[in-house]
Amino acid sequence: MIDKLNITALGGGTGLSSLLRGLKKYNDKITAIVNVADDGGSSGKLRSELGVLPPGDVRNCLVALSEEESLMSRLFQYRFPERGSLAGHSFGNIFLTAMSAISGSFDNAIAHCGEVLAIRGKVLPVTLFPVVLEAELKGGRHISGESRISKVFEKISEIILFPPNPPAAPEVLKAIKHSDVLIFGPGSLYTSVIVNFLVDGVIDAIKSSKAYKIYVANIMTQPGETTDYKLSDHIEAIEKHSYKGIIDIVLANKAIVPKDIIRRYKKNGAEQVEIDKVNIKTLKADLFLDKIYARHDSSKLAEAIVRAVKLKKFKREKK
Amino acid sequence: MIDKLNITALGGGTGLSSLLRGLKKYNDKITAIVNVADDGGSSGKLRSELGVLPPGDVRNCLVALSEEESLMSRLFQYRFPERGSLAGHSFGNIFLTAMSAISGSFDNAIAHCGEVLAIRGKVLPVTLFPVVLEAELKGGRHISGESRISKVFEKISEIILFPPNPPAAPEVLKAIKHSDVLIFGPGSLYTSVIVNFLVDGVIDAIKSSKAYKIYVANIMTQPGETTDYKLSDHIEAIEKHSYKGIIDIVLANKAIVPKDIIRRYKKNGAEQVEIDKVNIKTLKADLFLDKIYARHDSSKLAEAIVRAVKLKKFKREKK
Repeated sequence: MIDKLNITALGGGTGLSSLLRGLKKYNDKITAIVNVADDGGSSGKLRSELGVLPPGDVRNCLVALSEEESLMSRLFQYRFPERGSLAGHSFGNIFLTAMSAISGSFDNAIAHCGEVLAIRGKVLPVTLFPVVLEAELKGGRHISGESRISKVFEKISEIILFPPNPPAAPEVLKAIKHSDVLIFGPGSLYTSVIVNFLVDGVIDAIKSSKAYKIYVANIMTQPGETTDYKLSDHIEAIEKHSYKGIIDIVLANKAIVPKDIIRRYKKNGAEQVEIDKVNIKTLKADLFLDKIYARHDSSKLAEAIVRAVKLKKFKREKK
Repeated sequence: MIDKLNITALGGGTGLSSLLRGLKKYNDKITAIVNVADDGGSSGKLRSELGVLPPGDVRNCLVALSEEESLMSRLFQYRFPERGSLAGHSFGNIFLTAMSAISGSFDNAIAHCGEVLAIRGKVLPVTLFPVVLEAELKGGRHISGESRISKVFEKISEIILFPPNPPAAPEVLKAIKHSDVLIFGPGSLYTSVIVNFLVDGVIDAIKSSKAYKIYVANIMTQPGETTDYKLSDHIEAIEKHSYKGIIDIVLANKAIVPKDIIRRYKKNGAEQVEIDKVNIKTLKADLFLDKIYARHDSSKLAEAIVRAVKLKKFKREKK
């Protein structure tokens, strides 16, 4: 059943990649909508050097959706030897550069990647405009830039994009409107999930779609961005930046994160998100990846999405 | 029905690309086995420079099997601007170089292309050994090198590979043995079709497979290689280099090539192949691409293959 549905996932970062990696086994036409207001790390550097949208998240999502992920990942990360005319370039960047050249722009390149790469679905940047994320903190102070926001240790009151209301990429709104299932998260609450709602047209498209809307709650709080946030605080923040009723069902992790991991995360000010009572139907499942990081396990997460989708009766018979 | 069958096509050059281009619409897991004894043109140059198998035919087949052929073709042919660090390199070569580096060898790279590119099927070089094609002419003279053989104006008595009996690439024999349909040609009789039979193991694999074996006859003779050859001469040459009974059905063009094209071809010593009587079931169809060249039309050819396959009753129910 789930293989016949149009699924769109909005987010960014490792959370979105992890969701796609698991879900592609159940559905081969997922649309991943990626937040591109990323000014940190090497993507941010590329952005300021080349003036193109940061390809980091886009590339990770393409790899996560690929049929042979390990090969695609090695290919994209492959760096030509220092000696020789291709010295030091990564194949991923060469690929995106060539695609940009033949499609006329970086955003066209991204939209057409799925036509030349063996991937199950497509990846779309939420907006093609270069935007910077700004946060207003509870104390009234303003902070600019995703990388700085995610490092601040004061509660966020509201986030906005600058310039405000950048138009959504055309295909993004179409994908949202025609979705049967919309998935928000997992990922950084403000800088990966909510940021998508700030792009002009996205909220209206979500409202007008008949999609079943799933919010995948984070396992851990993020120091600064969501310090002390319970599940209800996450949802409140989402509704504040969109509208009440944007979530039909919450998927929350019920597995207890091992003490040694908790201890390590605590040093950085993160702890397990408390799943308190909320007024939205909540499906609790073990979503935890039992390794070094308290991250979502892509298989468990995909199985939980399948279960959540089964709870909803889809009226139209899908082709 | 044809979408459920394992189809393997042996050949090379534009003929094979044209077959794949049409047939991929009916079957998305075609195996193309490509002759790599190519010493002419830029592939030959690359081969003597880099010591790798010539990627020309391989690349053309990958493009012909791609889901979005025009985009894939533009991407592979894209050449980075002369100014800049990627100066003058074609994306196709950069791709094959990166794939070779991460898979350990050029042949592994080829075998895994289908896992990262959106192509319907796979392309395999018939042998991974560097071989040179030699021809013994009717007069007794020997000629070496595919490009020279295709230019000679004396009848060919026999062709051999040097070094003789190079082992077939492992996946090649497996693909042939498990085929439901084997297609030979269209393409240069000796240098694209028969050359595959000279690779060690190929004839045995064909004999042991239960495949329905289709030979697609050429529309025109090739000056030198098949001057004056009728259909029966083509088949005789194939059987001489393999065994009697290797062909179950012949697909021959019945459309008359326009006079102006014939006149132009005649200047180079080529004429329309006479479809004389042969002892093998022959399906005649209009296979002609009505343009500048007397080549096979990929759609008509694919439709004719579908018709030919329908003539054969496949015993096993395919999954």
